[in-house]
Amino acid sequence: MKATILVHCPDQAGIISTVTGFIHSNKGNIVYLDQHVDKPANVFFMRTVVEFQNDFSDLEHFKTLFQNELAISYNMEWSLHTDDKLPRMAIFVSKYNHCLYDLLSRYQSGELAVEIPFILSNHNDLRYIAEQFSIPFYHVHFTKANRVTAEQEQIAILEKHDVDFIVLARYMQIVSGNLIDKYPNKIINIHHSFLPAFAGAKPYHAAFKRGVKIIGATSHYVTEELDAGPIIEQDVTTVTHSHTIEDFITKGRDLEKIVLSRGVKLHIARKTMVYNNKTVIFS
Amino acid sequence: MKATILVHCPDQAGIISTVTGFIHSNKGNIVYLDQHVDKPANVFFMRTVVEFQNDFSDLEHFKTLFQNELAISYNMEWSLHTDDKLPRMAIFVSKYNHCLYDLLSRYQSGELAVEIPFILSNHNDLRYIAEQFSIPFYHVHFTKANRVTAEQEQIAILEKHDVDFIVLARYMQIVSGNLIDKYPNKIINIHHSFLPAFAGAKPYHAAFKRGVKIIGATSHYVTEELDAGPIIEQDVTTVTHSHTIEDFITKGRDLEKIVLSRGVKLHIARKTMVYNNKTVIFS
Amino acid sequence: MKATILVHCPDQAGIISTVTGFIHSNKGNIVYLDQHVDKPANVFFMRTVVEFQNDFSDLEHFKTLFQNELAISYNMEWSLHTDDKLPRMAIFVSKYNHCLYDLLSRYQSGELAVEIPFILSNHNDLRYIAEQFSIPFYHVHFTKANRVTAEQEQIAILEKHDVDFIVLARYMQIVSGNLIDKYPNKIINIHHSFLPAFAGAKPYHAAFKRGVKIIGATSHYVTEELDAGPIIEQDVTTVTHSHTIEDFITKGRDLEKIVLSRGVKLHIARKTMVYNNKTVIFS
Amino acid sequence: MKATILVHCPDQAGIISTVTGFIHSNKGNIVYLDQHVDKPANVFFMRTVVEFQNDFSDLEHFKTLFQNELAISYNMEWSLHTDDKLPRMAIFVSKYNHCLYDLLSRYQSGELAVEIPFILSNHNDLRYIAEQFSIPFYHVHFTKANRVTAEQEQIAILEKHDVDFIVLARYMQIVSGNLIDKYPNKIINIHHSFLPAFAGAKPYHAAFKRGVKIIGATSHYVTEELDAGPIIEQDVTTVTHSHTIEDFITKGRDLEKIVLSRGVKLHIARKTMVYNNKTVIFS
Repeated sequence: MKATILVHCPDQAGIISTVTGFIHSNKGNIVYLDQHVDKPANVFFMRTVVEFQNDFSDLEHFKTLFQNELAISYNMEWSLHTDDKLPRMAIFVSKYNHCLYDLLSRYQSGELAVEIPFILSNHNDLRYIAEQFSIPFYHVHFTKANRVTAEQEQIAILEKHDVDFIVLARYMQIVSGNLIDKYPNKIINIHHSFLPAFAGAKPYHAAFKRGVKIIGATSHYVTEELDAGPIIEQDVTTVTHSHTIEDFITKGRDLEKIVLSRGVKLHIARKTMVYNNKTVIFS
Repeated sequence: MKATILVHCPDQAGIISTVTGFIHSNKGNIVYLDQHVDKPANVFFMRTVVEFQNDFSDLEHFKTLFQNELAISYNMEWSLHTDDKLPRMAIFVSKYNHCLYDLLSRYQSGELAVEIPFILSNHNDLRYIAEQFSIPFYHVHFTKANRVTAEQEQIAILEKHDVDFIVLARYMQIVSGNLIDKYPNKIINIHHSFLPAFAGAKPYHAAFKRGVKIIGATSHYVTEELDAGPIIEQDVTTVTHSHTIEDFITKGRDLEKIVLSRGVKLHIARKTMVYNNKTVIFS
Repeated sequence: MKATILVHCPDQAGIISTVTGFIHSNKGNIVYLDQHVDKPANVFFMRTVVEFQNDFSDLEHFKTLFQNELAISYNMEWSLHTDDKLPRMAIFVSKYNHCLYDLLSRYQSGELAVEIPFILSNHNDLRYIAEQFSIPFYHVHFTKANRVTAEQEQIAILEKHDVDFIVLARYMQIVSGNLIDKYPNKIINIHHSFLPAFAGAKPYHAAFKRGVKIIGATSHYVTEELDAGPIIEQDVTTVTHSHTIEDFITKGRDLEKIVLSRGVKLHIARKTMVYNNKTVIFS
Repeated sequence: MKATILVHCPDQAGIISTVTGFIHSNKGNIVYLDQHVDKPANVFFMRTVVEFQNDFSDLEHFKTLFQNELAISYNMEWSLHTDDKLPRMAIFVSKYNHCLYDLLSRYQSGELAVEIPFILSNHNDLRYIAEQFSIPFYHVHFTKANRVTAEQEQIAILEKHDVDFIVLARYMQIVSGNLIDKYPNKIINIHHSFLPAFAGAKPYHAAFKRGVKIIGATSHYVTEELDAGPIIEQDVTTVTHSHTIEDFITKGRDLEKIVLSRGVKLHIARKTMVYNNKTVIFS
């Protein structure tokens, strides 16, 4: 049985040897270990993958020991993840189909180790894709007037389907603080610029107006401040004076889908940790 | 004899055939032609390289004809450049030496077709490099009090040396509107971020704080608004959570020198045109 | 009415002005022109987009004039393309679905200006995707024994559907010289390496063994020599010692689909010309 | 006092906890640890940086213990490096100056933590640069006839100056097996292509002929087989049909100097390990 353990805590001497010694003495074999120290913040981060000879019943015992013997004294925040249950990923979309198609074709190919209980949209335009891939589709209509009840409807759907995290695949609707609080660092958005440049609406238009020679895309965890959450992944491509705004949008689509899927895959693999509105991305 | 002709004017039907026909009937052979139409602005841009059988005395006649027969009726702004005289490039520096070393080693290798009449600095730190390469060095000291006279001194030096354009190779001093007016679209700066992200001071610190996964550099023509002039060239490199600010600075140095030298080479080759605070960069 | 004209011929003085003058005098307005001279080979290439006031009946007259008045004397190979009829693109696949999904989702989004009369495969594995997108699917089984008749079957299907060009979207079957001769520079393949490195089978395994730090993908026109045809587009991504062959394959999939779709789009837009086993790719 | 420890050995369970426990119990604080397991080869690699309260005299004791208590039983190859002595780096050049200028300007800026006892060349062309930077210059002339004695002269110079590693900064002369044996995995070369494409002479010419859309550079450790040693670092840049061979060479120069300096910096920082003709590059 294999488990991934994520740890962060105030940095101090001896953590690595203590944790690895603890794991070893509890019959775990470390097959991967990476660590990072944020020196200015004095925080220690570690990700380790451990193979246990034990079975799942023993794992509960291991977790109790880990909490009592290590976590309390080192003031750790930590989590342990096994592969026996696939995370459940909801996809929110609006009208653009490229990120949705990309995620679903990866899912279909077995590239994403998740279950997708449903696709949700504030429009009906992409219902046909959900049908192509035989995935349930919910249409939750938003108006200025119904915002609160519409969001309650969203949350009910999420809870009913026991969703672990949400991917905003070009979902063109502000997500409220209420929803974010329920899924902290569990809502992944794709923004179509290299943030912090061109946050907000119409970034390709703004990039065109500024005359940049490079455009980008950014996947990040959603926080209350728009387009200001912890960045997971970014990539860019070159443009020239000869490209129109429409060309920017077309070239950008390829960036968006790649950068979003990379962010989603890092999240699924438990390779992301968030601290001080930044991410640690393990290799 | 070879000449490069740059043209921009309001777009209309027939410009290309008229200009190419004119050149052909005046014994010029077009060896390169590239054009661009900014549709929203309705402006036509053209760069062409022409081989003339004629010698330089005839060229003056050609220019008179071009002005009278083409430029007036099409409302053209245009210029014609020959290779018989190297452009004279001044370099302004402060304390960082990497861009200066890079420019001078390219110059020494014959990669930059310019003359470098002098290096100017508001500090004496890099005088030794000027001496290594046997190039005159001027120290113009700036204080809050002497700003106006110091700038007058700068301008006197520039004019005395008949400078064609200025490269700010990490020159850490604001350039005044007065100087910019004398060298419009002829002052090239390197900014150590992918503009418009992180304009202003300490961009690497700001990038580190934001937790970006990509850092960049931008070469641009200097205008009165800080770091907001027409972009010539940009490039980026990836960073991770494990990089410190010092690592950003080190990685950034390589970007800065490459991006600045590319911008300088495009300028020297007359491949840049400026319009509406953006550049057209010909291939 | 808009037309794209592609020309190549031995280089000589005056071609551009002659061609542009001819177009202008025949009531065409040049809205785009790009040219290239291969100096070592002394060949001139030109791509121009022309807006005609005339309608299609006049176009035949224009083409006759172009042939008689220009093409013969300059020894031109040339072609003229209008947008009134979408090119017909056949897709050949085997068992990998990522390139197929990518092409079909772009097609569905309107990003590819083609008709897709059918998908053909030597296996039945991807039939379900053709059904998802409601596109006819042909299974042509290949064995060592039936190679000749199987290929005749392929050609019959291609001809019945009046196919203009073929995309090999990870089609794992050698294409014969017979088929290539019928579609010269009209069969686009994606190879999963940065050619000429790692031509042939299992390039990711070879790249892993060599310990490269960069892997790539290449789209190219198919010629009789395996993986040696004119390169249309290439791109790369970084890898490290920590990536397994499986990781190479996963990262490579994203490259393959991007590089193939770029190649296909350039071909559709008539931006490619082939000469001496190399391509000219217009902007 | 800080030390970097590099370890590789056959993989088995418990290595990390054993090594970290040993370090901790010997009053070392691990401030960095990265590990890699080559699964197909079943080899474990580790790089760790340790802060000791002890002083240097104790370090010898630590090393003895490490060897006796860990290295023998785990069958480790290992090394321990401190920063009290800068490595001594010889530079070999021929006629191209860009890599040499780049290395020396980095050295002058304090970016390379080395001593450079001398520059050696088979030509006199770049003597002036050694003089610009006040570094001793040796000219060792090679002919077909004097190859053996010339190499003896090289080795004598290397040994006299107690050189730790050698950088071939576009040194256009085959290095013999004799020299390689004396400096195993300690001679760094820059090759001007993305290996394994275009090994051998004139790679830019070969790349031009093949019509690639990407050119590259590779820094690698020198082994007896030409251009086939373990790759340290690679990078690429895009080219188009409009670039001449001369353009390839010019664009390539920038790649070469960046890729070489990155390789040199990784080597200096003890971030490289070699195994099975491949490298592990620690972060």
